[in-house]
Amino acid sequence: MITRSTVGVTAPEGFSASGVGCRIRDGKPDLALLVSDRPAAAAAVYTTNVIQAAPLVRNRAALERTGGSATAVLINSGVANACTGEQGDRAADWMAEETARLLDLPADEVLVASTGVIGVQLPLDRLAVGLPLAVEAMALDGGPLAAQAILTTDTRIKEAVGRVVTSDGAYTVGGMAKGSGMIHPDMATTLGFITTDAAVAPDQLRAMLQRATDLSFNRITVDGDTSTNDMIIAMANGASGVQIGVIDEEFERTLTQVLVHLAREVARDGEGATRLIAVRVTGALTEDDALAVARTISSSPLVKTAVYGSDANWGRVVAAAGRAGVAVQGERMRLRFGDLEVMSPGYHSDFSEDEALELLSQPEVEIWLDLGLGTAEAETWTCDLSHGYIDINAGYRT
Amino acid sequence: MITRSTVGVTAPEGFSASGVGCRIRDGKPDLALLVSDRPAAAAAVYTTNVIQAAPLVRNRAALERTGGSATAVLINSGVANACTGEQGDRAADWMAEETARLLDLPADEVLVASTGVIGVQLPLDRLAVGLPLAVEAMALDGGPLAAQAILTTDTRIKEAVGRVVTSDGAYTVGGMAKGSGMIHPDMATTLGFITTDAAVAPDQLRAMLQRATDLSFNRITVDGDTSTNDMIIAMANGASGVQIGVIDEEFERTLTQVLVHLAREVARDGEGATRLIAVRVTGALTEDDALAVARTISSSPLVKTAVYGSDANWGRVVAAAGRAGVAVQGERMRLRFGDLEVMSPGYHSDFSEDEALELLSQPEVEIWLDLGLGTAEAETWTCDLSHGYIDINAGYRT
Repeated sequence: MITRSTVGVTAPEGFSASGVGCRIRDGKPDLALLVSDRPAAAAAVYTTNVIQAAPLVRNRAALERTGGSATAVLINSGVANACTGEQGDRAADWMAEETARLLDLPADEVLVASTGVIGVQLPLDRLAVGLPLAVEAMALDGGPLAAQAILTTDTRIKEAVGRVVTSDGAYTVGGMAKGSGMIHPDMATTLGFITTDAAVAPDQLRAMLQRATDLSFNRITVDGDTSTNDMIIAMANGASGVQIGVIDEEFERTLTQVLVHLAREVARDGEGATRLIAVRVTGALTEDDALAVARTISSSPLVKTAVYGSDANWGRVVAAAGRAGVAVQGERMRLRFGDLEVMSPGYHSDFSEDEALELLSQPEVEIWLDLGLGTAEAETWTCDLSHGYIDINAGYRT
Repeated sequence: MITRSTVGVTAPEGFSASGVGCRIRDGKPDLALLVSDRPAAAAAVYTTNVIQAAPLVRNRAALERTGGSATAVLINSGVANACTGEQGDRAADWMAEETARLLDLPADEVLVASTGVIGVQLPLDRLAVGLPLAVEAMALDGGPLAAQAILTTDTRIKEAVGRVVTSDGAYTVGGMAKGSGMIHPDMATTLGFITTDAAVAPDQLRAMLQRATDLSFNRITVDGDTSTNDMIIAMANGASGVQIGVIDEEFERTLTQVLVHLAREVARDGEGATRLIAVRVTGALTEDDALAVARTISSSPLVKTAVYGSDANWGRVVAAAGRAGVAVQGERMRLRFGDLEVMSPGYHSDFSEDEALELLSQPEVEIWLDLGLGTAEAETWTCDLSHGYIDINAGYRT
């Protein structure tokens, strides 16, 4: 009997995974392997940082050569293999080639990903020990172990699943991700891995992945820093027998839901976070305006520390909106924390501080700003800024 | 005998000042008055936040009506008079009118400034008690007391002075400023006040103030938040008898030096700061490129927390440079912390961690990144990001 994980990357048919430790990070799992039982259509989106880590450079070239196909992904945590020069490029190639050799695949069928400290060379001797163990450990219920091994300063694993039943049969979309510092739109130091047993053409998969990322991972921020390593990889192996049409809203919606769930989990688990903040901006003239205002609010350290302190300092939200580069008018704004209106048009403010304190102490806080100008809206997610963030980042290398 | 303060806004001839407490902030001085003994040419630069506090709106109109003249400035701390609607506008007018009445001046000869909590109305009853005290206390050595009264979360007063001897006589440029959170280029939650006893035409003063601000206050960042209240006011009363020519490099250089000194002090005293960080970017193709990279590095929470932890995490500097929107090339970069080269072109890194720890533990840390592309350069200033920032901002209102 095969035990299949109900969430995560091994939820769809035909995917197995493993997570092992090979002492890149002492005492923690640090090497994950994700394998499809057949070549899968594959697509990736990458960080916008112009300094890109070696794995990203390699995957871009490999996916070009294969025309969008991959069978396996090897991921290590602890060392980012970024800013590592030619030696780093060779290490990324080695990861793909050695995995391909062990799995008897063409090298270009293996994608790679790394996350961790920048500017340090990968310890290939340790990977050489760990990789056979990862191959050995591959299992149809290995998703959670893989999701564990890709984490760095994350405090918990992040998995998601969506299942769709159609007249042609059912298919599943699974995913896992890691955060948790250096996270900002376009994209985040985030690695995301999406699997599906639907059959999707590579070009279509890439286009849908890009759109779904724009609505999910590109809408979260932890600290405004964009990483050199961010990447989301999607693999569609067709094992369910369901073919996704050229226009398939249900598939794209499911893919987006999986990514939004993962993105929110990444924001919720931002370094040092004690709560998730959803920033909803409505009443904008355009969606771009709404998004710019939401992003500026969710990037504001003053807003984020106020939420950490459960302090209904609504002026900071309005001030952040004012510097978003959008022609807002403070007098027309209406601001709510959850259900509680804290400012109405004309800068009227009269609310119960006790009620605000209660709302701002929940694990999930909604900041809803209506600009009073139009009908467009957008939502972004972030976390509060706490002492934990400082603790984690003041000595990350040590 | 008149005792004149040697630094600050009362260093130039003909300026007196005072700082008193009127219980806007309990137990702390919170009301400052700065007065010239004759009408002075006056100019101001304002925040780029589209939500502007009532005092800014009023000063802009008053300076327009006078064609650039002012005799007095009244400044309160504790309440920002921002997001306060029509009542706030009336309060700013009241501050100017009441000061003008007590000093027997036209109302438009009085400028006003406020800093503190957003969204709270000014307690005019308390100001009405404090203002006569401030007028009473005016003194030729009152600069430091005024510099004290304008502070909010600042830990120390910020004053500067420059003195120039010319063939026509000597003149002085003095200044005071306050920080310290919500500080970011264009501009900062910063109030700055510059006085000089040189005679300068208003248009010329405005142009020089703008250029000097671009090289000083617009190059500091504490947390990326831009305030609704930022403003720098300059007053030139001509009391020295020295007339500044249409092109006067020495005056502009002195003005810039005074503003740079104040700006660095504001960065050094950023909320929770334990050290000043100077970010110098050289080897850029254009000054705009150098400035963009320097600003991105000095805005990076990951860089700032690493410096707080005295951690030579150079990869974060390189990664920040990569997301500045400039076509940099990591392999061509050279990075130094102070005198210590931590990365040379081709991502070579071999340095003494002990030496780096020592350098990064100094009160002033220089991060010097050479892009290896051209000859343009720029410098910005920031502070580290510490537990103190969180403590201050998690409960500022309370």
